[in-house]
Amino acid sequence: MTGTPVDLSHHLSQEARLRKPNSMKEIWRLARRKPNMISLANGDPHSSLYPIKSLTFDVASVTEKDPVATWRAGSSSAPSHSITSSRDEAPVLPVRTAFQYTTGAGLTETQQAVTELTRFYHNPPDHVATLSLGNGDGVTKCFRLLGSPGDHFLADEFTFSALANAAVPHGVKWVSVKIDEGGLIPEDLENVMENWSEERGPKPHVLYTVPCGQNPTGSTLTVERRKKIYELARRFDLLIIEDDPYYFLQYTSKPSTPEAQPAPAGSDSQSALSPRGLAPSFLSLDTDGRVLRVDSFSKVFAPGMRLGFITSSPFFHAHLVALTDSSTQHPHAFGQLFLTELLGPAGWTLAGFDAWVRSLRDEYQRRRDFFLGLFEKEVAPLGLVDASVPDAGMFVWTKINVERHPRFRREAGKTKGATTNCRQLMEELFETCLDNGLVVMPAWVFALPADPKYDENPIADRMNYFRLTFAGTEEAMEEGLKIFGQSLKEFYADQPKCIEN
Amino acid sequence: MTGTPVDLSHHLSQEARLRKPNSMKEIWRLARRKPNMISLANGDPHSSLYPIKSLTFDVASVTEKDPVATWRAGSSSAPSHSITSSRDEAPVLPVRTAFQYTTGAGLTETQQAVTELTRFYHNPPDHVATLSLGNGDGVTKCFRLLGSPGDHFLADEFTFSALANAAVPHGVKWVSVKIDEGGLIPEDLENVMENWSEERGPKPHVLYTVPCGQNPTGSTLTVERRKKIYELARRFDLLIIEDDPYYFLQYTSKPSTPEAQPAPAGSDSQSALSPRGLAPSFLSLDTDGRVLRVDSFSKVFAPGMRLGFITSSPFFHAHLVALTDSSTQHPHAFGQLFLTELLGPAGWTLAGFDAWVRSLRDEYQRRRDFFLGLFEKEVAPLGLVDASVPDAGMFVWTKINVERHPRFRREAGKTKGATTNCRQLMEELFETCLDNGLVVMPAWVFALPADPKYDENPIADRMNYFRLTFAGTEEAMEEGLKIFGQSLKEFYADQPKCIEN
Repeated sequence: MTGTPVDLSHHLSQEARLRKPNSMKEIWRLARRKPNMISLANGDPHSSLYPIKSLTFDVASVTEKDPVATWRAGSSSAPSHSITSSRDEAPVLPVRTAFQYTTGAGLTETQQAVTELTRFYHNPPDHVATLSLGNGDGVTKCFRLLGSPGDHFLADEFTFSALANAAVPHGVKWVSVKIDEGGLIPEDLENVMENWSEERGPKPHVLYTVPCGQNPTGSTLTVERRKKIYELARRFDLLIIEDDPYYFLQYTSKPSTPEAQPAPAGSDSQSALSPRGLAPSFLSLDTDGRVLRVDSFSKVFAPGMRLGFITSSPFFHAHLVALTDSSTQHPHAFGQLFLTELLGPAGWTLAGFDAWVRSLRDEYQRRRDFFLGLFEKEVAPLGLVDASVPDAGMFVWTKINVERHPRFRREAGKTKGATTNCRQLMEELFETCLDNGLVVMPAWVFALPADPKYDENPIADRMNYFRLTFAGTEEAMEEGLKIFGQSLKEFYADQPKCIEN
Repeated sequence: MTGTPVDLSHHLSQEARLRKPNSMKEIWRLARRKPNMISLANGDPHSSLYPIKSLTFDVASVTEKDPVATWRAGSSSAPSHSITSSRDEAPVLPVRTAFQYTTGAGLTETQQAVTELTRFYHNPPDHVATLSLGNGDGVTKCFRLLGSPGDHFLADEFTFSALANAAVPHGVKWVSVKIDEGGLIPEDLENVMENWSEERGPKPHVLYTVPCGQNPTGSTLTVERRKKIYELARRFDLLIIEDDPYYFLQYTSKPSTPEAQPAPAGSDSQSALSPRGLAPSFLSLDTDGRVLRVDSFSKVFAPGMRLGFITSSPFFHAHLVALTDSSTQHPHAFGQLFLTELLGPAGWTLAGFDAWVRSLRDEYQRRRDFFLGLFEKEVAPLGLVDASVPDAGMFVWTKINVERHPRFRREAGKTKGATTNCRQLMEELFETCLDNGLVVMPAWVFALPADPKYDENPIADRMNYFRLTFAGTEEAMEEGLKIFGQSLKEFYADQPKCIEN
């Protein structure tokens, strides 16, 4: 830990600087100087008028050896655990408390619950939690907090475009950093920052990255790279937005199929992992307060939760709360109550949550291995595609050996833009899959929009990937990989065919 | 209705214009051309892995004559109504459907439920619903959709500052329109628009207003003024953001105390009201598609709901969905499930909702009259304060006769800025109340920040108001108004006193 806090206030966006403090809060600050103040100030409906008598959540039991397997197998007869909050009584959060107005940071009880969770897994230096409305909300609030028109943000060259695009209307330009199976490549990050040309505009000051099971490449940053990247962030004064929805889905073993690719170079020994057996997050390394970590429950509970949290230094926390107060306001009571009671003494507790996510990780690991087994059988023998073996998350990044296609062309001597017909061929293969009844996610959906002036190694020549998922059912995987193999055969045979419209 | 739709696309903000379509959606559009497509595309957790077996909401029964009175009186023994949604089965929305990923517009079933509700109360021309995360989210999304740096927005001169301030970091400047007991004054709106000086910048193109029980003044727009304002909006090409959280709290009678002020001039006969006995919303008049109406359930259910909706033309709806997809994403499943089932066939149904809100309106009307009765007894006899009689909402705007204070001063000949010490005296009175244990909301919290260059009739001289609420308990009103009367006596006696720090 550094002895003195680092001043990072120059990273705030214009929008964040222009935000005014809420003057009603100032009134309340004044009012708090005396106890038992009578209020005729706020138009808050009284809790006796909330039409809710109680909420009951019947959730999976986590006391079994492998709770997720039991839960899935049991269907409606699976053992469950009931949690009730009534208007005036509850283990932690009664309805009358949960459903009142609160500040953008969320209910104190819920903040405490997620703070405990973060301490358990990350044990960060001086950091606090701000509740969010899930991953999209958390990440885009960080963008709004830090991005002014003309700013440059760094990201993995293939990234989840729905979120990256959300920064563009704020005037933020993306700068891509290369990525391989071990995640974002520190040497490329260093190269981008060292050789930044001032004529391009302000030097990047934010790195947005998904460290575990990256979407779409499925890659996970090695421990060594995490440390290197954090050091580079200090050296170049970068903030890191650590978007980590797949953190709990870090797999503990390689699949048993010997044909699978070897682990990436620089892969860590178990000993480098945290006491929980998980890779150390950037947050856990963050002595300076330059990490804003975005956590989500969508992958471990359900996407409809729409409740997550951002962990940051107290400085950025205060600004995130101000932004929340003047946009979405505090998160919904339903989710806060659910989460607080689930993690509380009458719910799963934190130990039960840990049992659930470990069991869920095993479930997804089984699915990954099932997928890769099918891949070895249906696709690999064609010799046309390589599949990555993800150490975390839900995705297999498959590389199509597009150079082997009879119509593959390279334009010699071209210095700007695509030098091959890779993209066109991939669009054809994508169409062939669709025609055969299979939808996959093509790489071009994820390619960061690059400034052609600085696009030295054009990403258009590296579009020969599909993102495939093992999150679906076994039937979908079986049928899907069969169609994939068949589509590849058709495509490489290159028989003329009628295109359906 | 006009025959042809009006093109209002020029109102979009820079941010809205720069927003890119989601390229993953394009993939899904392509994939939908064939039925039964196998997907290996999306990383959606399968519903069998959601740890929720069922959600049960025990809500107030609405079959009684006066359901709110029964509910309040009954406490834990009050008759209730239980609604359950299980993983695979529910009256309308099973857990497995509600908790999956969906688009920014929200779940189809929930959109249908709020569309029905809007049809029942407003029966608007060609409009559609976009779910929001409550009032703050709805209003600020409209600001983001329409406000570019340098833009001017119009609003009631006293307005809910926490929201108005949210537009400022987007570079929006506020222009105030005068307001009286009948709401925003159309002639002043006309005056501002007709005499707009080009040197001030672009002419205002958005009017933000709260038509019922306006916060803080409690005023409600007369039917006549609503029609005039809509015509002015057409003439000057204004969009109207209709923020209407108190719509369901429109009172049907004046209080019985004869000393109370008469109804404002131009008050409507019942016949001008809609078939539901409620004033016609701007939405109901909106033939052009220039109204974005923001609805909230915070006042009729509970603030913690954080679920509301925006009703707009299909054009603005599409942009609101794009903004939602790239920020908060879809609303939480908990609230959507709750609302859909509550309004659905196994819940209250729409008729039950109407019974609840009518009964709730009567409850708040009783509170208003209770408050005004106390006011007549504790405060009015001093002859120092006038209370407005609100026709809707939760607030009484009390005007302090500050000119009668022994230290009131007017600076003659001053042409810019405050010409009286009104604000200083009001701060003293506010402090006196606090010292005596009462917190009220002072007018300066709500005054729109004005451009001093164009501030002809300075609002600083009209700060002699407090917003008082009757939303609290009867005890708070009794005790609070006693302290208020006593504080006024002290303040006007103007005895020197020690100020506590």
